[in-house]
Amino acid sequence: MRIDIITLHPALLDGALSESIIKRAREKGLAEIVIHNLRDWCDDMRRTADDYPFGGEAGMVMKIEPIYKCITELKSQRHYDEIIYTSPDGIQYNQGEANRLSLLDNIIILCGHYKGVDHRVREHLITREISIGDYVLTGGELAAAVITDSVVRIIPGAIGDEASALTDSFQDGLLAPPVYTRPAEFNGWSVPEVLLSGHFAKIDEWQQEQAMERTKLLRPDLLK
Amino acid sequence: MRIDIITLHPALLDGALSESIIKRAREKGLAEIVIHNLRDWCDDMRRTADDYPFGGEAGMVMKIEPIYKCITELKSQRHYDEIIYTSPDGIQYNQGEANRLSLLDNIIILCGHYKGVDHRVREHLITREISIGDYVLTGGELAAAVITDSVVRIIPGAIGDEASALTDSFQDGLLAPPVYTRPAEFNGWSVPEVLLSGHFAKIDEWQQEQAMERTKLLRPDLLK
Repeated sequence: MRIDIITLHPALLDGALSESIIKRAREKGLAEIVIHNLRDWCDDMRRTADDYPFGGEAGMVMKIEPIYKCITELKSQRHYDEIIYTSPDGIQYNQGEANRLSLLDNIIILCGHYKGVDHRVREHLITREISIGDYVLTGGELAAAVITDSVVRIIPGAIGDEASALTDSFQDGLLAPPVYTRPAEFNGWSVPEVLLSGHFAKIDEWQQEQAMERTKLLRPDLLK
Repeated sequence: MRIDIITLHPALLDGALSESIIKRAREKGLAEIVIHNLRDWCDDMRRTADDYPFGGEAGMVMKIEPIYKCITELKSQRHYDEIIYTSPDGIQYNQGEANRLSLLDNIIILCGHYKGVDHRVREHLITREISIGDYVLTGGELAAAVITDSVVRIIPGAIGDEASALTDSFQDGLLAPPVYTRPAEFNGWSVPEVLLSGHFAKIDEWQQEQAMERTKLLRPDLLK
């Protein structure tokens, strides 16, 4: 899978996608992540990527021309399954959408910054608008990193232990049960006894119960 | 405001919080962001921060001891208003919570990794569990970056143009209206005429209408 990320601030993405599971997935060739500096498509002397909004509002708006040039050039090189723009008014991102995107071959993620992009970009160049949550960020870079991370980690082979991703929250529609590791007692706080019993059927039953109870308590909406 | 972030992968956070508005807020002294490598609190020779889960599940679990030591040391130095753990089963993060956190003096954000932390950490050391959305990430680092970014940018003085943050999506309960910048025509695609009229009352009316229409269409749940 190939993910092209278009941004005015490549440095915001440098660290976030170069460690741990994502680093290994890139090294194994499971995911190619290419970060493009949008200023490379700004033709004018000052490499202007943004301008004042029509209508006299506060803030700056990203211009359509460099974005159009960048996306057009990428599309001339390969077919893209989705061209994503991250914005708080996009569809709400969830694990189902992450699973769907992880099956695609090539996607572009355009990061907005400042007040966002010229709306004509969204109307004519973007195929999917995604929001990672009901809050406003400095720019779309963190949203692009969240999407990339959540998608790449579930590409088969990315996580060393295959079973691990299957027991994640949401993959079975429930929150994950509590986990514990050594020591069995710390500061007077103990691990639930069943986990130390070695009785795997009972442990499995306890974990199922906990997953259901935690979901009922914390996220009853997931059970509807 | 001071934000302490505890992580096993400091490099994941390096770039994400060192550019643009967040960089300026740090330089102006509006926000102090301190990233702690949890391994500095691992006493054993191999600096072990994780271990196998009790009960024989797949994946690794972060141990309680180094986390306990790190948080205890920080708490001995100053009062913390919240000690946050990022997890998909936490309360759902939104702009209201970002606004609330931005008024606090000191917070800690603990980043989980692998299958998460020993549950006793969550029961005894954490005061607030936050989920940035219904999806699973490689670790809590991106979630911590999202929380930090969304909180620091709304600290008064962080955004150069004060009025800009007030017109963000969610701050008035509505999605933001579309924005446009020059050129007025590109590739045959035009800017709505009202925005070029110079008639500010009409522009304002149009923007209000658009914000309401987009919210009704895309996020009717925000109007309930």
